[in-house]
Amino acid sequence: MKKEAIKISDIGEDAFIEKVKKEVNLIFADRVVEGIGDDCAVVQGGEGLTLLTTDSLVEGCHFIKDKISARDLGYKGVMVNVSDIAAMGGSAQYVLMSIALPNDTEEVWINEYLEGVNEACQEAGVELVGGDTTCSKGGIFINFCVMGEVLEECVKYRSGARVGDVICITDPIGGSLAGYELMMAGVQEGELVEKHCRPRALDLEGEWLGEQVAVKAMMDVSDGLVQDLRRMMKASKVAARVDLEKIPMSDAFRQFASKTGRSAEELAIGSGEEYCLLLAVDAKGLKQLQKGFKEEFDRDLYEIGVVEKGKGVSFFKDGKKIEVKSEGYLHFQVSKEV
Amino acid sequence: MKKEAIKISDIGEDAFIEKVKKEVNLIFADRVVEGIGDDCAVVQGGEGLTLLTTDSLVEGCHFIKDKISARDLGYKGVMVNVSDIAAMGGSAQYVLMSIALPNDTEEVWINEYLEGVNEACQEAGVELVGGDTTCSKGGIFINFCVMGEVLEECVKYRSGARVGDVICITDPIGGSLAGYELMMAGVQEGELVEKHCRPRALDLEGEWLGEQVAVKAMMDVSDGLVQDLRRMMKASKVAARVDLEKIPMSDAFRQFASKTGRSAEELAIGSGEEYCLLLAVDAKGLKQLQKGFKEEFDRDLYEIGVVEKGKGVSFFKDGKKIEVKSEGYLHFQVSKEV
Repeated sequence: MKKEAIKISDIGEDAFIEKVKKEVNLIFADRVVEGIGDDCAVVQGGEGLTLLTTDSLVEGCHFIKDKISARDLGYKGVMVNVSDIAAMGGSAQYVLMSIALPNDTEEVWINEYLEGVNEACQEAGVELVGGDTTCSKGGIFINFCVMGEVLEECVKYRSGARVGDVICITDPIGGSLAGYELMMAGVQEGELVEKHCRPRALDLEGEWLGEQVAVKAMMDVSDGLVQDLRRMMKASKVAARVDLEKIPMSDAFRQFASKTGRSAEELAIGSGEEYCLLLAVDAKGLKQLQKGFKEEFDRDLYEIGVVEKGKGVSFFKDGKKIEVKSEGYLHFQVSKEV
Repeated sequence: MKKEAIKISDIGEDAFIEKVKKEVNLIFADRVVEGIGDDCAVVQGGEGLTLLTTDSLVEGCHFIKDKISARDLGYKGVMVNVSDIAAMGGSAQYVLMSIALPNDTEEVWINEYLEGVNEACQEAGVELVGGDTTCSKGGIFINFCVMGEVLEECVKYRSGARVGDVICITDPIGGSLAGYELMMAGVQEGELVEKHCRPRALDLEGEWLGEQVAVKAMMDVSDGLVQDLRRMMKASKVAARVDLEKIPMSDAFRQFASKTGRSAEELAIGSGEEYCLLLAVDAKGLKQLQKGFKEEFDRDLYEIGVVEKGKGVSFFKDGKKIEVKSEGYLHFQVSKEV
């Protein structure tokens, strides 16, 4: 006789909350006055400015349940929000998690999901202090909200880029899109799949870059370089020129592009969910910043273009202007892509 | 020729965000350093403790799209979160809104929804500072996250009830459940439907009650008095006795119960989404508190029971113990109710 799997409808809300509580790490034990269990979480306010961000993961839009493990999903949900705090130069602290689950969601899925949430919280040094659990008639819907802090002199906006600044990114790009395609084709592991399913927020890098006066504007690459850089330029009221041959790409990603017969550069600049940091850097401070970054994080800070007068983003390859087809990730047109 | 309605997939994410921005009221213009549009919202930290809360509204679970107006839904989404801040004795300030919309969601629905969000923000004195917009393959999913503040000496937990305290509620109950049933039967207006669809968070009452030392424990009634009082008693490690004849009920609700041939008291104590405040009050300070509440808000603070030694909640009617069937609102069993 086959034993039937335990479902969320058998467990109930209060027991689910107890499960969540067990997973929580008391990272800010001295500052969290009241965590999960009351109407609100109660925390000590910090020094400086408060940062607030929220991001959702929707089944069928952001993930396919059969393709990504519950553990990776929980991990990713936390990390993409921590990334937004890092992108302002701040330090993430408190997390709220809302989750809507269909009644037939299995307990084993929930346990693995919570383990992933917990792993990410530990790695990023943030504490889950509250949330909301409810049923869903559609698929799984997850929303995280993260609060952090930053000193007033360290906060970095999208709007700070000025003509003459250098455009930089902290990591090779393209891997997340490649990983997504491989995952959808049934591949379950490897560098590229890992890049898509378990993105590591650049919390330490973001905080360090926040402290550097040469960094004039910063954001994370979540919807693809094309779209995100365009947003930074719009907010800063300037234009950007990107040299495609300077875009850093991993060997695994280059091989993937080559195998599928597509332009690696085009794929890379359209790849969303990269969670590397995109910067506009004062040209005079660039060399010093790159040196400091290398010393601190043992890797390069990549120069990919410059800020110019005007509007929009243009792409060049070996000095020639290229018309780029990639539009990055558009949230209400995703049905055409999946 | 019929003109086709404009859909969210025609508008796109950036235009949606522009729409949201237009609706925002700059309530904390001096304290919101950066609102919607960057990776995070940036706000000035406040005095005292920070309160964080989040709540979701899921289509098919919390609402049926054809039954509730978009305006009421937006209004309710904000208010239920403000209610959680009020329930701790705090003052709500900043709001983050995540919304997942099916591609065929009509622009007119979105506009009305945003008007409702805006109305609630204005009434409750809170400011929308950020959020996330995305597609949905299931129904509409909405999540709000609200941040507020409270002075350390004013914060009220669920766990503060002590033996001998008096149990009070701020308003008649039952109306929300009645309104829900009427709405599902196609009724679109009236006192009871309004009570369910447009709950007014008790922001001023919550803040005032937070300042009163006689209030030992406080929470809002969101899942029904039976379940919420049981939670308060569990957190406080005490028991409660409720006298059903003392439960305040509106005339409209009594008529509803009578017409449907059910016990008004049983319905009332099981009614979720009431958003009145539930208190444990020091018996010695009760009369003074009731007098002050009446002066401040021109209505009664209702005494409905007492805190005793032991566990759980028992119900009495005219001195006789009653076995109560109502369990309140259970989130993972809602399919049995709808």
